[in-house]
Amino acid sequence: KVECNLGLNQKLKAGETKLCRFRYDAVKDLFQKPATVLIFLGVEKRKNPSSSSDGVREPPAWFAIGTDEDTVELLKRSREKNCCFPKSPHRDLLKLNEEEAGVMAQARSVLAWHSRYSFCPTCGSSTSLEEAGYKRKCLNSECRSQQGVHNTCYPRVDPVVIMLVIHPDGNQCLLGRKKMFPAGFFSCLAGFVEPGESLEEAVRREVEEESGVKVGPVHYVSCQPWPMPSSLMMGCLAVAVSTDIRVDESEIEEAHWFPRHLSSLTLGKKNFYPFSQTTNQLIIRHINQQ
Amino acid sequence: KVECNLGLNQKLKAGETKLCRFRYDAVKDLFQKPATVLIFLGVEKRKNPSSSSDGVREPPAWFAIGTDEDTVELLKRSREKNCCFPKSPHRDLLKLNEEEAGVMAQARSVLAWHSRYSFCPTCGSSTSLEEAGYKRKCLNSECRSQQGVHNTCYPRVDPVVIMLVIHPDGNQCLLGRKKMFPAGFFSCLAGFVEPGESLEEAVRREVEEESGVKVGPVHYVSCQPWPMPSSLMMGCLAVAVSTDIRVDESEIEEAHWFPRHLSSLTLGKKNFYPFSQTTNQLIIRHINQQ
Ligand SMILES: Nc1ncnc2c1ncn2[C@@H]1O[C@H](COP(=O)(O)O)[C@@H](O)[C@H]1O
Ligand SMILES: Nc1ncnc2c1ncn2[C@@H]1O[C@H](COP(=O)(O)O)[C@@H](O)[C@H]1O
Ligand SMILES: [Mg+2]
Ligand SMILES: [Mg+2]
Ligand SMILES: [Mg+2]
Ligand SMILES: [Mg+2]
Ligand SMILES: [Mg+2]
Ligand SMILES: [Mg+2]
Ligand SMILES: [Zn+2]
Ligand SMILES: [Zn+2]
Repeated sequence: KVECNLGLNQKLKAGETKLCRFRYDAVKDLFQKPATVLIFLGVEKRKNPSSSSDGVREPPAWFAIGTDEDTVELLKRSREKNCCFPKSPHRDLLKLNEEEAGVMAQARSVLAWHSRYSFCPTCGSSTSLEEAGYKRKCLNSECRSQQGVHNTCYPRVDPVVIMLVIHPDGNQCLLGRKKMFPAGFFSCLAGFVEPGESLEEAVRREVEEESGVKVGPVHYVSCQPWPMPSSLMMGCLAVAVSTDIRVDESEIEEAHWFPRHLSSLTLGKKNFYPFSQTTNQLIIRHINQQ
Repeated sequence: KVECNLGLNQKLKAGETKLCRFRYDAVKDLFQKPATVLIFLGVEKRKNPSSSSDGVREPPAWFAIGTDEDTVELLKRSREKNCCFPKSPHRDLLKLNEEEAGVMAQARSVLAWHSRYSFCPTCGSSTSLEEAGYKRKCLNSECRSQQGVHNTCYPRVDPVVIMLVIHPDGNQCLLGRKKMFPAGFFSCLAGFVEPGESLEEAVRREVEEESGVKVGPVHYVSCQPWPMPSSLMMGCLAVAVSTDIRVDESEIEEAHWFPRHLSSLTLGKKNFYPFSQTTNQLIIRHINQQ
């Protein structure tokens, strides 16, 4: 079990969640354990370095730790009360502000990569962690991965397109639901970019695969890392050039055209997927502003 | 050695290059060899199915083959003259039209993935090719990769940002050169998106790392698959908020502000990297139209 070392402090103002930071002293014994993975996250950016209470001291550096310690034991090390490890990371991630969500995304993606990629995919040998956690090197000196630069040594980032498809009449948009969604919830369609295609081609292919709707123009709107385990969600607006819906039942249970002006997250009895800071929501907000 | 089965026909009109297709009969004996990798590329899209000379026949399906056969032997199988395997794929790829470049990108990325990822990164066991070449399954039935959906089984696509940085005065842009570039050539700065960051953050980080220049607003322009081995190049315009250049010498040899209106690929004695269809060029063209 590799978990992010960043606990969450959930008893702030209603709805507000912050990351808990552990001090070096509280975790230094973990470094003796062979299962511990340590990665560098970065140095804090001081908005106004001169007014810092630390005087001339360097800004603090932050690390993430992957460990197989018991979470209850880990929480005892924190000096903060109300600290916990997220039970449903999907949901808790959305309660963080953008900067802290980025810290969490970086930690979670890189730790998930170490947990899943400890063997060299080119020769099957063991690998060692290098460059502060951002590289894994094959331990077999004969391995092809020792020559040249290849992606096998570096953490993976999977580009995903998530798109709001607009009806040719300009007043409706296409949303769908997977079987696993809570009853009545719909979201934008989404899918992994495949090798050899552009973002725009991925949007057209996924929309047609999942809903049967054909798409013309595609416009990139915004993007967001989504560390489940390591996606980069790229939000697009897509203009449909056909309207008949025929869902691919292996991926999507139901899809419909909904009125464009979604005044809130609720629309009659149908609800939209309750992402608050996600790209999904960002592009819905964007279209409502137009 | 795994090479793309798609030869190139280079003796067309000056500068024009097309993919050579091999017929099933010419390559079917390759399927008997254990080193052969076969992947499905797709079914041809007929623009006007009724006017097809094949009457009611199905449109052809295309595959890519990875093989360790000698290239001279392979070329004898082609019914086309003037057929060759690319010696400098970087350059030859740019001579293809967009559709054929996409076919080549798909074939090259997926074959490169099979060549580099034949062992399970989670447990080190061998894997088998599945789903027409788009999945590799671990042969160890106890492996964690057998439970749930994970990216270890799927081909990798690496998002890269490539950006034209615009001077605060609006009339100059920042280009750099790597040591390995031909003398006098400059290109847009570029870099891999790292886990936990957005496109826009990756642009700001890479520009500052490589040139010391700080960037404010970032605008996505266009993207292009770049199968070396499996990148997705996302072209952006970035507006600088500082102008002092301090290059990171491990990555970049030299970087300068150049006049914005690059009337051609040549600018005095300095040349720009001769990408003709790439994102690099696309964003330079885009800025010149503004
Ligand atoms: N990198 C990847 N990570 C996870 N699943 C992937 C990946 N690439 C393709 N898939 C497949 O894509 C399905 C999800 O469909 P979609 O998100 O619509 O592309 C998953 O169930 C997998 O079968
Ligand atoms: N997925 C990847 N594939 C190849 N190189 C990578 C990757 N991720 C990070 N790198 C490193 O990034 C360097 C190139 O720098 P840049 O393109 O500016 O990010 C390479 O020499 C590698 O050390
Ligand atoms: Mg899909
Ligand atoms: Mg898909
Ligand atoms: Mg999907
Ligand atoms: Mg760089
Ligand atoms: Mg980089
Ligand atoms: Mg670079
Ligand atoms: Zn190896
Ligand atoms: Zn395995």
